[in-house]
Amino acid sequence: MVVTDRVLMGPGPCNPYPEATAGLTRPMLGHLDPEFLALLDETCENLRTVWGTANALTLPVSGTGSAGMEAAFVNTVGPGDVVVVGVNGLFGERMCDVAGRCGAEVVRVDAPWGQPLDPEAVLSAHPAPKVIALVHAETSTGVRNDVAAVAAGKGDALVLADCVTSLGGIPVAIDDWDVDLAYSGTQKCLGVSPGLAPFTLGPRAWERRIPTPQSWYLDLGMIGAYTSGTARKYHHTAPIAMITSLHAALGALLDEGLQGSWDRHAECGAALQDGLEKLGFELWAAAGYRLPQLTTVLVPDGVDDAAVRRALLTRYGIEIGGGVGPWAGKVWRIGCMGHTARLRNVTLLLAALSETLSR
Amino acid sequence: MVVTDRVLMGPGPCNPYPEATAGLTRPMLGHLDPEFLALLDETCENLRTVWGTANALTLPVSGTGSAGMEAAFVNTVGPGDVVVVGVNGLFGERMCDVAGRCGAEVVRVDAPWGQPLDPEAVLSAHPAPKVIALVHAETSTGVRNDVAAVAAGKGDALVLADCVTSLGGIPVAIDDWDVDLAYSGTQKCLGVSPGLAPFTLGPRAWERRIPTPQSWYLDLGMIGAYTSGTARKYHHTAPIAMITSLHAALGALLDEGLQGSWDRHAECGAALQDGLEKLGFELWAAAGYRLPQLTTVLVPDGVDDAAVRRALLTRYGIEIGGGVGPWAGKVWRIGCMGHTARLRNVTLLLAALSETLSR
Repeated sequence: MVVTDRVLMGPGPCNPYPEATAGLTRPMLGHLDPEFLALLDETCENLRTVWGTANALTLPVSGTGSAGMEAAFVNTVGPGDVVVVGVNGLFGERMCDVAGRCGAEVVRVDAPWGQPLDPEAVLSAHPAPKVIALVHAETSTGVRNDVAAVAAGKGDALVLADCVTSLGGIPVAIDDWDVDLAYSGTQKCLGVSPGLAPFTLGPRAWERRIPTPQSWYLDLGMIGAYTSGTARKYHHTAPIAMITSLHAALGALLDEGLQGSWDRHAECGAALQDGLEKLGFELWAAAGYRLPQLTTVLVPDGVDDAAVRRALLTRYGIEIGGGVGPWAGKVWRIGCMGHTARLRNVTLLLAALSETLSR
Repeated sequence: MVVTDRVLMGPGPCNPYPEATAGLTRPMLGHLDPEFLALLDETCENLRTVWGTANALTLPVSGTGSAGMEAAFVNTVGPGDVVVVGVNGLFGERMCDVAGRCGAEVVRVDAPWGQPLDPEAVLSAHPAPKVIALVHAETSTGVRNDVAAVAAGKGDALVLADCVTSLGGIPVAIDDWDVDLAYSGTQKCLGVSPGLAPFTLGPRAWERRIPTPQSWYLDLGMIGAYTSGTARKYHHTAPIAMITSLHAALGALLDEGLQGSWDRHAECGAALQDGLEKLGFELWAAAGYRLPQLTTVLVPDGVDDAAVRRALLTRYGIEIGGGVGPWAGKVWRIGCMGHTARLRNVTLLLAALSETLSR
């Protein structure tokens, strides 16, 4: 088959860091090999640094970000548990679906897509929820929700945060914010192929976890007995190549420094958003809550959404994303994440988009 | 970190085919890119060939083989459903755990570890089960169970087969045998890194599926709407690098031919089992039911299990597996799967084992 390469400026996957790609081809090791276990330990330790946490149970779940979401809910939510979910995009909607399948009584707190959640509304939605869940960086809208404000007012509830599109791209501080559990994905600002869900769960969530979750595969008690502790009790065969790739990418990220990665994402996002406004586009996400790593604009009146995206893909090899749900056809989602977050890609996209619209 | 390479002769992962490793580093594509969707279609079509099925719903589940097991149960088993499980090893045990978490009434049919299941006992265990589940190739014991005989007598039940260690290594014929659903793993006889679960589900199972499974991530109705059909409805971000690797490995496998792959595994297994008996070892798995791709022997009296395995690993870079469950410390499990299934590896292992035991 033909092999094409792309500049991946959609909502994920991004272009992986060269180190991440090289990490995929490291010679295969067994999942109980002492060398692999050392590499896994180092991966988990570097994940703690990236999450800003000392949580012992910090590890890559063996599935994509959505598996991380499911792991978060099945390990903390059982039948009849009240879960408040902030919903201002597709991934908040998904949380309601996943929590419902755990038997939760779901209390939704909606905000319009493109606008941030109101932390006060989320906190006052129910007097005693077991879990308050929200998305930090809504990949469907490009909006940042204020996780820190929600966690600060959580009272006795557990706070569960979706950090799929935030981790590595904007500040995430699990321990400083007092977030109880969170998950991410490898294919966004961590610059790795999709396939793993970095995960962290703190002591309060551990104490209140579901002892036998409905999912065997995502049972964090069993997974933790393999990834940490001394017994290294076999649960399932770890996805070796993906973990060696994540290990390599985290090494590159920490060599650059977390602050350096945040700064680079911020610089690219600002240049992109500024450039798009200069081209006459209207930014969609609310001012003050715009993600630098994922920019959303309204498709201008009279412009054919699909035709423009197809032209960018076929003429320039650039992928950008369309809108989803009620916003399909109405917005574009332009990612600048991981290795894609380079000024050269911003400059290229702005020029290619300008050319395409003037053809 | 130090990079060591191994000859992987444990119960999996095996050494991946060079084509599979190269496939991991193919330039990243988006999960909705037309080129990726074409590659995914070809992957699913080649999986149909390898499974011996025309099932439309044939795809790689985005997790390891154990995610495939969970996908099989959550999509077909709900509270109160009767599930007969044949148990003669760790993975039969695991099936009971997973089915129980779906609320099933589990009816176990045990056979001693190292012995095959009795198909008549499995078929007569309950008058009207919804599902009869069994493991084709028990990775914990090296025993083959007769899936075809169970499927032939299934009556109105669905037959669910674990083919993690069989697919690509010994004949599997989903349609000819009339198996309703089955899953595998990439890291055994398919010669890919762990991380995907090739899966197939036929029309009878589709008609009787659970409409809203307790797992969102493994909801085959939603996953199928992305992998097949024309809408390509986004569910979760596909693990791109792992799928391009599987695509490449299936290409290599089908270039060799399924029969060629079965023959190579058979030849290596026979040479290994013959060689081990000549060295004085007692084979553990029952004669007539021995897997060529996974050979089990009793650890000789007076031999230190862990010390021998450590010596093989550190002196020769060869990994073999120990026993699990009640057989920990009592048996060795020696895999010859995927790219590892070469006579040179058999010759090396026999010589290295001989040297180690005579030191």
